[in-house]
Amino acid sequence: MSNVYDKAHELSSALKDSDEFQKLKDLHVEVENDEVAKRMLDNFRNIQIELQQMQMQGQQPSEEEITQAQKQFEMVQQHEVISKLMAEEQRLSTVISDINKIVTEPLEEIYGTPEDNKSE
Amino acid sequence: MSNVYDKAHELSSALKDSDEFQKLKDLHVEVENDEVAKRMLDNFRNIQIELQQMQMQGQQPSEEEITQAQKQFEMVQQHEVISKLMAEEQRLSTVISDINKIVTEPLEEIYGTPEDNKSE
Ligand SMILES: [Ca+2]
Ligand SMILES: [Ca+2]
Repeated sequence: MSNVYDKAHELSSALKDSDEFQKLKDLHVEVENDEVAKRMLDNFRNIQIELQQMQMQGQQPSEEEITQAQKQFEMVQQHEVISKLMAEEQRLSTVISDINKIVTEPLEEIYGTPEDNKSE
Repeated sequence: MSNVYDKAHELSSALKDSDEFQKLKDLHVEVENDEVAKRMLDNFRNIQIELQQMQMQGQQPSEEEITQAQKQFEMVQQHEVISKLMAEEQRLSTVISDINKIVTEPLEEIYGTPEDNKSE
């Protein structure tokens, strides 16, 4: 397994050295150093977490809570740095999801693809 | 990002070429070709899935269901090939969890470690 761990570390370094990662890191620092932007983003994230927790508990958010979340979403979308940060986070999240698919592909040889299992 | 994807494929190949993966693959084929072993393992997995689903829905399994699950668990533990397969699956699952930690480590530079966030 030592080669597997070596390759995992090499992948980790490649991710760290990528332009996309560095850009995300810079944008994050930029938001952290901007008090107004930081508060806006924290607010938005807290609302998102609350809505997710309600959803997991099978609760329905009130109309007011939905309106509030939409307003916060529009605000962060209109903020240049935050909207760039969120777009970059989305991009990196896709890359990490791709990585997971690539790395665990060998397991499909054993257990089949999700597609195979569907037709079983 | 092309280097990231190259490295992900190299990691995937290293995993596929590892002795541990090949051993798991062979054990899986051995169980698939043994009708009694296959039925025993399928049974055990179905019971596990049922218990997990009950747990997610906040339901308590009956005493009979718990006894049944324990009996099935003892049976697969005593089956040489199945117990080897399950040990090998556990080993690979640990490796994949390690890989995930290593690969997503750069994100800690941005968002902090779980430990950092606890003390916030
Ligand atoms: Ca190496
Ligand atoms: Ca390469």
